[in-house]
Amino acid sequence: MATNRELGIVVIGGGTGLAVLLKGLKKYTSRLTAIVTVSDDGGSSGRLRAEMGVLPPGDIRNCLVALAETETLMNKVFQHRFQAGGGIQGHSLGNLLLVAMSEIAGDFISAIQEVSKVLAVRGVVLPATLEPVVLAATMENGGTVIGETRIRNHEGKIQRISLIPDQCLPVPETLKAIQEADAIVLGPGSLYTSIIPNLLVKGVAESITQASAPVIYVSNIMTEQGETDGFTAADHLQSIKRHLNRQLVDFVIINSGVIDEHRLRRYRQERAIPVSPAYEDIQAMGINIIKEDLVSNDDVAWHDSDKLARTILTLLD
Amino acid sequence: MATNRELGIVVIGGGTGLAVLLKGLKKYTSRLTAIVTVSDDGGSSGRLRAEMGVLPPGDIRNCLVALAETETLMNKVFQHRFQAGGGIQGHSLGNLLLVAMSEIAGDFISAIQEVSKVLAVRGVVLPATLEPVVLAATMENGGTVIGETRIRNHEGKIQRISLIPDQCLPVPETLKAIQEADAIVLGPGSLYTSIIPNLLVKGVAESITQASAPVIYVSNIMTEQGETDGFTAADHLQSIKRHLNRQLVDFVIINSGVIDEHRLRRYRQERAIPVSPAYEDIQAMGINIIKEDLVSNDDVAWHDSDKLARTILTLLD
Repeated sequence: MATNRELGIVVIGGGTGLAVLLKGLKKYTSRLTAIVTVSDDGGSSGRLRAEMGVLPPGDIRNCLVALAETETLMNKVFQHRFQAGGGIQGHSLGNLLLVAMSEIAGDFISAIQEVSKVLAVRGVVLPATLEPVVLAATMENGGTVIGETRIRNHEGKIQRISLIPDQCLPVPETLKAIQEADAIVLGPGSLYTSIIPNLLVKGVAESITQASAPVIYVSNIMTEQGETDGFTAADHLQSIKRHLNRQLVDFVIINSGVIDEHRLRRYRQERAIPVSPAYEDIQAMGINIIKEDLVSNDDVAWHDSDKLARTILTLLD
Repeated sequence: MATNRELGIVVIGGGTGLAVLLKGLKKYTSRLTAIVTVSDDGGSSGRLRAEMGVLPPGDIRNCLVALAETETLMNKVFQHRFQAGGGIQGHSLGNLLLVAMSEIAGDFISAIQEVSKVLAVRGVVLPATLEPVVLAATMENGGTVIGETRIRNHEGKIQRISLIPDQCLPVPETLKAIQEADAIVLGPGSLYTSIIPNLLVKGVAESITQASAPVIYVSNIMTEQGETDGFTAADHLQSIKRHLNRQLVDFVIINSGVIDEHRLRRYRQERAIPVSPAYEDIQAMGINIIKEDLVSNDDVAWHDSDKLARTILTLLD
């Protein structure tokens, strides 16, 4: 797979996990396409969505900043969150800029492109769909929970996540990028609110199956309360498989680094624990395992951007 | 006064009038300094001021856009006003950007400088003062009206306008620009809410008196309801003189063009009429008169940017 040209990598997810990955990958290639969930309904994004009927811009914004060529003042401004001021408090300027640019340029994709120019973004950021999509969770106890924030805050095991409407379409560039990719990376990120929603958009899972590129799933380092309590890496993979009725994933990248007691204690307050791999279960699924110490030196148990990017590139070498 | 170097011009005012003048002047010189009122308390600026305790950014924003090197998408974005969305509706993105930049850069002057870079602004825009200043009007009937918007909306004749606090200081660059100027231009703009407030800031009128540059007053084309009903150009000049206890103005530029009946009819609804010059009264004050057809071809009775700029430059030649 090593050629003279840069590797084309499609990353699929949302939230902070995807931004961490993009920050690492942009050092090695500019042929990056980030496909980002737009089902967020909390915080600044949720308010803009409810009050203005726009797509929630927050996850897109984080990816744009992660892919910005250099750390400029403009990045800081873009990420700035107002601390005071009636209806403005809590909004990030970047979200407002994306909304304004959408109104001026006439559509969300053009707005992202224009902001990409201003921030000198390396790569392309695409919303998973342009339709106003809502997440729904069918719980194991039979109940249904509607809306991303409610799903995150709801206790109880999720049986199945779905999109309302269930036939929403991807941006055409998404399918093209998947077809032309040298690698397709899922995650890291929230299983039910970032990863799977993207894969449920019409045609995406089919395109990934048909694409020649290896599909790499980056296992989360920690479980998430209300979403993946007690989940092993194998459980995450099983859930993806169950939702799509197919085995998408060829490789799984699993963290083998140890989280120190100080960090563990903090995560325990959020009822999150390190994800156990359950290697035998993964092997039984026919998925190749890559183990690596990927824990960042920050105060959080996130992936180290550069270590994760290098692990992916080594795999593709 | 014709030298090889570009002319240094200081313009003093606020509102749309100043922006119209700057748009014209920037074609002829980059040594422009705009000194802009910050007593606005209405609209988006007023809300930001009340809710966030910042200086009202609106007039500054208009001047920055007027001085932007080229018409880019960024200008459009900067001037974009949100049409919907709870606390965001009615705000312009440029105002929010100036507020965010102030919070990041730590002060309003740095924020203006950074935004000036982004917009490739020709010249320097300075707030009249960095202090949170409020306008007060003593009416001829003895009453007092507090706040720019209230003053604008109040019927009755204004005797004297003043600043609260009355000892607010200018930005040091203001006095330096005045000292080094080849010309100092007052207006066009609202007499009591844009022109005179700037001149009441401590040291400004004294600096203008001491400066070697000619002081040019651009007479408004139309009167303004609640501020200058029935005023002649001479009345405007008399009011400036009365407020400052000195004769600041050397030249007055007066429009000799005719406003068509269509436009007059619209202005009549706002109880505005063309400003009569009262030439004899002006001559009696010892002020030189420049007459020129300066009416724009737009649908409003504003100055034509380019005609006004060329009139000023011819005067300085």
